[in-house]
Amino acid sequence: MKKVKLNGSAAEVESAFYDALNRGDVEALMKLWADDDEIVCIHPGGPRLHGHIAIQSSWEAILRKGGLQVRPSRLYEAHNLMSAVHTVVEGTTGIDPSGPTGKEPAHLLASNVYLKTPQGWRMVLHHVSVAPGPAPSAMPAASSLH
Amino acid sequence: MKKVKLNGSAAEVESAFYDALNRGDVEALMKLWADDDEIVCIHPGGPRLHGHIAIQSSWEAILRKGGLQVRPSRLYEAHNLMSAVHTVVEGTTGIDPSGPTGKEPAHLLASNVYLKTPQGWRMVLHHVSVAPGPAPSAMPAASSLH
Repeated sequence: MKKVKLNGSAAEVESAFYDALNRGDVEALMKLWADDDEIVCIHPGGPRLHGHIAIQSSWEAILRKGGLQVRPSRLYEAHNLMSAVHTVVEGTTGIDPSGPTGKEPAHLLASNVYLKTPQGWRMVLHHVSVAPGPAPSAMPAASSLH
Repeated sequence: MKKVKLNGSAAEVESAFYDALNRGDVEALMKLWADDDEIVCIHPGGPRLHGHIAIQSSWEAILRKGGLQVRPSRLYEAHNLMSAVHTVVEGTTGIDPSGPTGKEPAHLLASNVYLKTPQGWRMVLHHVSVAPGPAPSAMPAASSLH
């Protein structure tokens, strides 16, 4: 796979990741991952996928009908010189599988981890889960950040 | 909070984390986290918790009745000199909230991220979610690793 060298920051990789998701651009999405068999992607309620082939296949299936409407907000970040560990709220959903009717309000939480590699900053982990209730509002809402 | 200096590896911190979980030792558990307000813990199906106070309270509630039986297995690891990004299978559970009866076999997937800090290797993220089906068996079962 042709790789682009990303000289920017982890924040720029994250921005490019969500841009690619919103456009439904799997090729652009996959170029942001580290060249490492131990990269991992866990979609909401899904199994662990590792390596480029499995992860790319999953995104092709998810994005077959077009891009997602995902606007990350409420970032927390722990980092050092060679790594950035982000968690964001990816948005709300009406499907909380653990709720009594399965249709309670819920929100999606994503952990995105970026490492500095010889090719620049790259994603090594994308782990998303469903959390109960509406998205937390203690920080500015997504709409005010975009 | 008194902090111990951990001179070992990320793998040693992970081992100490699960040892503390199995003993139900919240104090030992919390000493393994980075001294950073942006540390994040997401329990299965739970909201995002950040900072020492919220994370410690959650573990006190979970461990009130004693230690958990968690034996991490099937590690994938992406790393560089200052960071280690682990995902492990934490074990099986009989409660898959997304299944039709809510009692289908399921397994727990944990992402554990460790950064090298001035105090040594520390945990900055623990994100767990429920995945459908029995734990994957393509790699050695947990029982053969312990």
